[in-house]
Amino acid sequence: MHQEPLIVLLTDFGTSDTFVGVMKGVIASICGLARTIDLTHEISPQNVREAAFHLDRSLSFFPEGTIFLCVVDPGVGTARRAICVEAGPFRFVAPDNGLLTPVFERYPEARCHLLNEARYHLATTSATFHGRDIFSPVAAHLAAGVPLDETGTAVPLSSCTRIGMFRNLALRDRIGWQGEVVSIDRFGNIVTSFDAGLVSDGRSWVLSAGSAGDIPMSNTYGDVGEGLPLAYIGSSGMVEIAVRNGSASRGLHIGQDTPLYLLKT
Amino acid sequence: MHQEPLIVLLTDFGTSDTFVGVMKGVIASICGLARTIDLTHEISPQNVREAAFHLDRSLSFFPEGTIFLCVVDPGVGTARRAICVEAGPFRFVAPDNGLLTPVFERYPEARCHLLNEARYHLATTSATFHGRDIFSPVAAHLAAGVPLDETGTAVPLSSCTRIGMFRNLALRDRIGWQGEVVSIDRFGNIVTSFDAGLVSDGRSWVLSAGSAGDIPMSNTYGDVGEGLPLAYIGSSGMVEIAVRNGSASRGLHIGQDTPLYLLKT
Amino acid sequence: MHQEPLIVLLTDFGTSDTFVGVMKGVIASICGLARTIDLTHEISPQNVREAAFHLDRSLSFFPEGTIFLCVVDPGVGTARRAICVEAGPFRFVAPDNGLLTPVFERYPEARCHLLNEARYHLATTSATFHGRDIFSPVAAHLAAGVPLDETGTAVPLSSCTRIGMFRNLALRDRIGWQGEVVSIDRFGNIVTSFDAGLVSDGRSWVLSAGSAGDIPMSNTYGDVGEGLPLAYIGSSGMVEIAVRNGSASRGLHIGQDTPLYLLKT
Repeated sequence: MHQEPLIVLLTDFGTSDTFVGVMKGVIASICGLARTIDLTHEISPQNVREAAFHLDRSLSFFPEGTIFLCVVDPGVGTARRAICVEAGPFRFVAPDNGLLTPVFERYPEARCHLLNEARYHLATTSATFHGRDIFSPVAAHLAAGVPLDETGTAVPLSSCTRIGMFRNLALRDRIGWQGEVVSIDRFGNIVTSFDAGLVSDGRSWVLSAGSAGDIPMSNTYGDVGEGLPLAYIGSSGMVEIAVRNGSASRGLHIGQDTPLYLLKT
Repeated sequence: MHQEPLIVLLTDFGTSDTFVGVMKGVIASICGLARTIDLTHEISPQNVREAAFHLDRSLSFFPEGTIFLCVVDPGVGTARRAICVEAGPFRFVAPDNGLLTPVFERYPEARCHLLNEARYHLATTSATFHGRDIFSPVAAHLAAGVPLDETGTAVPLSSCTRIGMFRNLALRDRIGWQGEVVSIDRFGNIVTSFDAGLVSDGRSWVLSAGSAGDIPMSNTYGDVGEGLPLAYIGSSGMVEIAVRNGSASRGLHIGQDTPLYLLKT
Repeated sequence: MHQEPLIVLLTDFGTSDTFVGVMKGVIASICGLARTIDLTHEISPQNVREAAFHLDRSLSFFPEGTIFLCVVDPGVGTARRAICVEAGPFRFVAPDNGLLTPVFERYPEARCHLLNEARYHLATTSATFHGRDIFSPVAAHLAAGVPLDETGTAVPLSSCTRIGMFRNLALRDRIGWQGEVVSIDRFGNIVTSFDAGLVSDGRSWVLSAGSAGDIPMSNTYGDVGEGLPLAYIGSSGMVEIAVRNGSASRGLHIGQDTPLYLLKT
């Protein structure tokens, strides 16, 4: 049987409103055969870097031919460009705001086109919801067989916006790293920029962040008492910080900009 | 390739429970080819008017042939009627409680049938979950090719329940309108009852609401500074109120019942 | 047209993160024709018994051939076994932690295999996300036609973990039962462990729980006044407690551990 085209959605729209449902209606109207998968719609509002991180971590689990429709778009309605990109086995439709930075890093040979062919947009486009009016229709037209070249003007990849991704700095004065908060989930758990590989060397590591003292690495929540902090390898493959049956973000005063330290004991 | 039938779900069931998943199981059992799209399941509990508003605003983005399965049903288990409606290119399955008011207004020639043919319901029907036992099976049978006429007795459209939708009152003492909050999204943006048409006359309008003073109409977020309020034509086609990179609801103390004023300057 | 294979997902992963989206990517990579339905991803974290209950209550609404992919897995990364089970018209992929207890009870002739054939797993498997690395790929391979026997070693059903499901104790001092809270939905309605059969004997029963006095059995919400409590046969087939247009959980101070009493009047 013929393989149906697959469009994966990644946004900060949440699912309380009808935004995502309407985008899928637009897709179904243009390419009735396209399937959709929700990667997540709960990116922190307008957090382009968080979206880029999750896209990077998820890409390799999707089949060849997947079209990623990524809309975290604080600049909607401004002059920021809208692009589609063909990179390896995938295509991407997104605002040109750095969201595709990891794609550009993985696929330096990627081809990029602006979305300036209005015939592939909805007939009427709003100033505030390009997810519905521009990005979804273009993704659906790609799914229906429109070649990348027809979506608009070709632009060099070097012209596309790149943002600094999460990174860790080696400390000078002791063995360890300074890192960053990648995201804070709805339970207040903190995903850090420390990859599991950093702590898999058999050494003893502690994590230091916010108002907590040194937090030892644990295997899981059960290893510490109620209300106490722990650090562990999360399913994202990154070190995470939690408070057992509490919120690490609130309880330890850790926010998006709090510096994190991974230290050898 | 053959187009698969599409059923769009609109409920207040949320997605924490298994209600929606089980409805999709019922649909898959009756019409394995039907696809489903979730418009939203986060209508405020039992808020029929909010569901009607979102249905009205979303309809036109879905393809011809779409079946809308709408279950916001405070009267489940009482004598309220269950209906299906064929209106223009769409069909609707819903309780007869006013949820389809906008459909009746758009399509005065719509045909309506009661859902009183029990052979299209589950064999056992509960008193509290007609979404699973009656509405989903009927929607799935329609998707599988059962004609509208077979779902039950034809009734005149005039017999169907209509509710008052959101509306605006002309002010006596100056040029303008008093309106209503339609909904508040997860970002704290306010959708108002003021249609874009009201402010497209070339005049200068301001919006007054909550603790903000007069808010001028802007084109998009970028038109005001960080943390400042703006009013603009939202993607719903209604005037909306936002705070740039903030929450208008919290920042301006606007709730579901806050009166809104659209005023000529 | 050919019926596409259906995989139903039941997890405690929530939908804020990308866990579920990535699992669906893995499925699509292996079996592009498989459809998925989310039963729910909001099982209380690591609550195997709650997942087992919802699986039991939902099974019969899904079509023959459905594959249930159930991942509530507090033991991930430990020595707990992973299994797949063929039972009646269904197949199940899950950790061997008791989640499938109701399946074993309904289908004593079920066949069980371990998931120890690594060629049906992802090439690299993590210690913390077997939902992505083992359970999803096996479910997808089953959907693609791999026979149960090839997923790993056959084991007797008697070797599989069973847990005590919710239960009711007969009272000593009067006619009735002490039972348990099974789950609390988003409306604050309480699902109890009392099966409809217990109150279908024509006798008069009342339910006593939390700060409410005796709550009589009603047919539906409309039977009591606004803000008053009622007990009724819920759509799950269990006795449920609600407050009309309110929250029984908050209004009556009923939590997960509140003892419930079903009493003959």
